[in-house]
Amino acid sequence: MAIANLQDLFLQTLEDLYFAETTIVTKLQILAEKAENAQLRAAFETHLTETREHVTRLEQVFDALGEPPRGDESPAIEGITEQAEEFVQEIEDADTRDAAMLAAAQAIEHYEISRYGTLVAWADELGRADIAKLLRETLEEEKATDAKLTALAESRLNRKAAA
Amino acid sequence: MAIANLQDLFLQTLEDLYFAETTIVTKLQILAEKAENAQLRAAFETHLTETREHVTRLEQVFDALGEPPRGDESPAIEGITEQAEEFVQEIEDADTRDAAMLAAAQAIEHYEISRYGTLVAWADELGRADIAKLLRETLEEEKATDAKLTALAESRLNRKAAA
Repeated sequence: MAIANLQDLFLQTLEDLYFAETTIVTKLQILAEKAENAQLRAAFETHLTETREHVTRLEQVFDALGEPPRGDESPAIEGITEQAEEFVQEIEDADTRDAAMLAAAQAIEHYEISRYGTLVAWADELGRADIAKLLRETLEEEKATDAKLTALAESRLNRKAAA
Repeated sequence: MAIANLQDLFLQTLEDLYFAETTIVTKLQILAEKAENAQLRAAFETHLTETREHVTRLEQVFDALGEPPRGDESPAIEGITEQAEEFVQEIEDADTRDAAMLAAAQAIEHYEISRYGTLVAWADELGRADIAKLLRETLEEEKATDAKLTALAESRLNRKAAA
């Protein structure tokens, strides 16, 4: 698709994020199954429920734009999740694997925070307060998830992995 | 490389980040050349200077670990920067291209913030306060750069692109 203006760029980035969120639903299921630490598993499961909600919200944004929901390949999220899957398969020590999965989840969160932040700013500029509001709700949830993962990272999890 | 413990995972992630930072040096030069908006160009140029310093700091971390500096392919950063390059080449409207480059720069920042945050936590867990200190300096600079880019995104730049 040719990008002639900010509207086009918004739609393109929305499609990237829709692909990312639907990919993350699948990957979080794998991470949740493989997590050894109960708190980490619970964090992944909670975020899985939230991510399904985020997918629905993105579909509402497509609807508000009069566009069909469509995912466009997101090389960034593919890169992050592929590396996470390699770690899950290759790392035998459970605590070290948990540390790697937690780090991957934080990289995913930060990618999403950056993309939602961008889309909120653009929606405001495009005069679409309705869309900005929907996206801002998800942005705040992503930030809360990242804070929760940071607290986990700073807690005993990694100390155990280093033992 | 087989990852048996947190030390190995730390080194692997350090190599990912070293690849990312050296890649970013090259890509920021392209972004700075292509930026139309003077503030955006200045932000890229400042960050280029900082990124060269971050590369040097990572080399100090390798040195502190007794390991040679070595970059390991980072599919995430490759995905983000490839998309940025496509936008730079394909978007003809200068203001829209600036908005796309700014968004790409923020995605890069967030990837780095996530990776440095992870490495700081792991360095602390591994009892390497010296390494944590070095990495924390860069982490704070990456956060400051992201805040600067967010302020630019919220300023007139995108409003112009929407005009």
